[in-house]
Amino acid sequence: MSESVNIGLLGCGTVGQGVVRLLTDKDSPLERRLGKKLKLRKILVRDLKKQRGDHIPSELLTKDPREIIDDPEIDIVVELLGGIEPAGGLLLQALENGKHIVTANKALLAEGGAPIFAKAAEKDRHVGFEASVAGGIPILKAISEGFVANRIQKVVGIINGTANYVLSEMAEKEADFESVLKEAQAAGYAEADPTLDVNGTDAAHKLAILVALCYGVEVPFKEIFTEGIEQVTSLDLQFAERLGYCLKLLAIAEENSQGIEARVHPTMIPKEHLLAGVKGAMNAIYLVGDAIGEAMFYGAGAGSLPTASAVVSDIAAIAARLEESSLLDIAAGLHEGKIRSIENWQGEYYLRFSVVDRPGVLAHIAGVLGEHDIGIAAVYQEERGTGNPIPIVVMTHEAIEKNVQKALQEIRSQETTLDKPVLIRVEKG
Amino acid sequence: MSESVNIGLLGCGTVGQGVVRLLTDKDSPLERRLGKKLKLRKILVRDLKKQRGDHIPSELLTKDPREIIDDPEIDIVVELLGGIEPAGGLLLQALENGKHIVTANKALLAEGGAPIFAKAAEKDRHVGFEASVAGGIPILKAISEGFVANRIQKVVGIINGTANYVLSEMAEKEADFESVLKEAQAAGYAEADPTLDVNGTDAAHKLAILVALCYGVEVPFKEIFTEGIEQVTSLDLQFAERLGYCLKLLAIAEENSQGIEARVHPTMIPKEHLLAGVKGAMNAIYLVGDAIGEAMFYGAGAGSLPTASAVVSDIAAIAARLEESSLLDIAAGLHEGKIRSIENWQGEYYLRFSVVDRPGVLAHIAGVLGEHDIGIAAVYQEERGTGNPIPIVVMTHEAIEKNVQKALQEIRSQETTLDKPVLIRVEKG
Repeated sequence: MSESVNIGLLGCGTVGQGVVRLLTDKDSPLERRLGKKLKLRKILVRDLKKQRGDHIPSELLTKDPREIIDDPEIDIVVELLGGIEPAGGLLLQALENGKHIVTANKALLAEGGAPIFAKAAEKDRHVGFEASVAGGIPILKAISEGFVANRIQKVVGIINGTANYVLSEMAEKEADFESVLKEAQAAGYAEADPTLDVNGTDAAHKLAILVALCYGVEVPFKEIFTEGIEQVTSLDLQFAERLGYCLKLLAIAEENSQGIEARVHPTMIPKEHLLAGVKGAMNAIYLVGDAIGEAMFYGAGAGSLPTASAVVSDIAAIAARLEESSLLDIAAGLHEGKIRSIENWQGEYYLRFSVVDRPGVLAHIAGVLGEHDIGIAAVYQEERGTGNPIPIVVMTHEAIEKNVQKALQEIRSQETTLDKPVLIRVEKG
Repeated sequence: MSESVNIGLLGCGTVGQGVVRLLTDKDSPLERRLGKKLKLRKILVRDLKKQRGDHIPSELLTKDPREIIDDPEIDIVVELLGGIEPAGGLLLQALENGKHIVTANKALLAEGGAPIFAKAAEKDRHVGFEASVAGGIPILKAISEGFVANRIQKVVGIINGTANYVLSEMAEKEADFESVLKEAQAAGYAEADPTLDVNGTDAAHKLAILVALCYGVEVPFKEIFTEGIEQVTSLDLQFAERLGYCLKLLAIAEENSQGIEARVHPTMIPKEHLLAGVKGAMNAIYLVGDAIGEAMFYGAGAGSLPTASAVVSDIAAIAARLEESSLLDIAAGLHEGKIRSIENWQGEYYLRFSVVDRPGVLAHIAGVLGEHDIGIAAVYQEERGTGNPIPIVVMTHEAIEKNVQKALQEIRSQETTLDKPVLIRVEKG
């Protein structure tokens, strides 16, 4: 090992501790593969006295971020603090000081990534962010390097483990959202505050990054249509099962003649779809490229060591290329883009109405759908005993989102409609 | 585009034509992403007069390989001839002349790769070979870069599309090997001479490359245990289905305390296994790393554009790094390795015996298995009508291969055993 590369770590939480473990593992194949030594030089923590695992070298801990970003010996600054600030400011300063940076911070990249990539381009430094999407799965490398010769026509991801875990458990145990979420928190599959996971924001952050890589487009994050899983009921999961579908929180981006679409919402996919087999907290990304055709990548989307595996792969890639002047950095060529509104999305829908069991109700619903150009592929209606509201389930042919929304509003306004209709989008390809 | 990189192509068959298409596509995102121009300079063909697609620029064709490997303007030589010679000699000469090389030639790399990697290391040139395993799936990049910080504990691949297609069709149509293979040839899913695909050799070639990347070990190709699918019967596929399994030709490498194992054989996997959903001619690689845990990659393993997608990703990666002196090239650090013999493999087995329907036959089989330390997990015996041989199916607990082989020999030698017993290995994890 002739050379060594010095690393400074900002943050030593779950992922940080995993990174320390991988970088200090004496039996690791890393150095043999890389031909260089990766040396951990400083670790930023909030509390120097906190009890930490034996593998954390206490002599490297500091409370002062300047000891890392101003240290001329440090080549790569790794940010694992999370959140927009102070993470963003520290990374900009690190780039200004000539450091390469690695981050797993999807919120920062999605909501405040532009100045960071601009500064990196100005200073000709590398930005590694493989861990920001789908944890340990090397999907960003696959898209930006492996599929470099492809136009990516569609990318569909299960990229929030918590949401996938909750939906999987709800389906398997026929349990409701609240109780499964509580269990998931107890079992460590959901955070104390799971809001961003279940309301789709975390998946939307990651989707913004995927869109940037796939289409070279900087997405205004707020333009991504985002719907969470809080409203999904056990009843809909049971209907999905009966209809041959599986319900997943999907992040979907697509390019077609009308532009780029990006959306996050609960989605029904056929049981035979590859993504249907992705259970529990696992992640997967399915994509279609014009040369490669269909492809899928599956693995752990979170957790200490899987995420650390991606962070260290970025460190290794930068270390391997330190002498290089130009980089295969798609983010550098970003141009501003516009996301097509969900209003114009065209697809199939699962609609469930809760209605009074009275003659003419189904006919009225069918009539309203027809007026809005929404073809019916199948209808399921079951008796529930007198006096009770009954569910009517409609599977539609391809229809336009805004038409469907208008039809639902109209049906909702009828006195025979007892509850807000349920709308779930269906993906088949 | 300030710079351009010149490419010479050896061969213009199925994959070569795909490469030409991707390199000459005016709307391709390739140049924008790469920041460099990739310029096709010469194409070696056997017959200058053969009719080719409009997109093949006839002015670039040559019958003389020296016009490519001796051209000082050419930076990267891409070999798509297939077979050991003249491909190997031409690549060595290209490296000698200071060219970087890209190849999709798994037979050459597995059986004669060592001198090529040695020459590349001597001359400090890049060798791209992503297309040699699993076609368009960027699995080599994932293993060597994405999972650089992982010890790969196990890698299991469906890496021969023809074999997977034949097995999928046999299962779905309850048809026999010969008739499905003929159909597959007619439909273009199998070559005119499919020997290397169905006898496991092609999968073993690819497995040798995977082992080199995963374990830094140069595998004597002949030491890989290889069994093809020629003996698989429709009857066994039906039993597999009934028992909750799926039958696949798997290439498996594993590292444990006893060394490295590498083997290719028809294998039963539980229907819920991710690899069970890989149908038709598709490929997939499932692996377990000590940091990442389980991961899987799925996509097209062959075909003109998918394979060309991988070839062009190698070209782009080399073009992006042309000024770099050292490389993240795992092959450069190869050491000689030994593969553990299949004799010591330990696992579960599906055994099928064709016997005379006579009292005591099952008891005898069970007795022989017990004597060889082979525990029985389940037995299935069915009546077939008098006079006919009956099948007895045994699912075993974990047992050692050489014990199983000995027991089968002993059972085979009984006069009540009418046919060679069928042995299929079961993988659960």
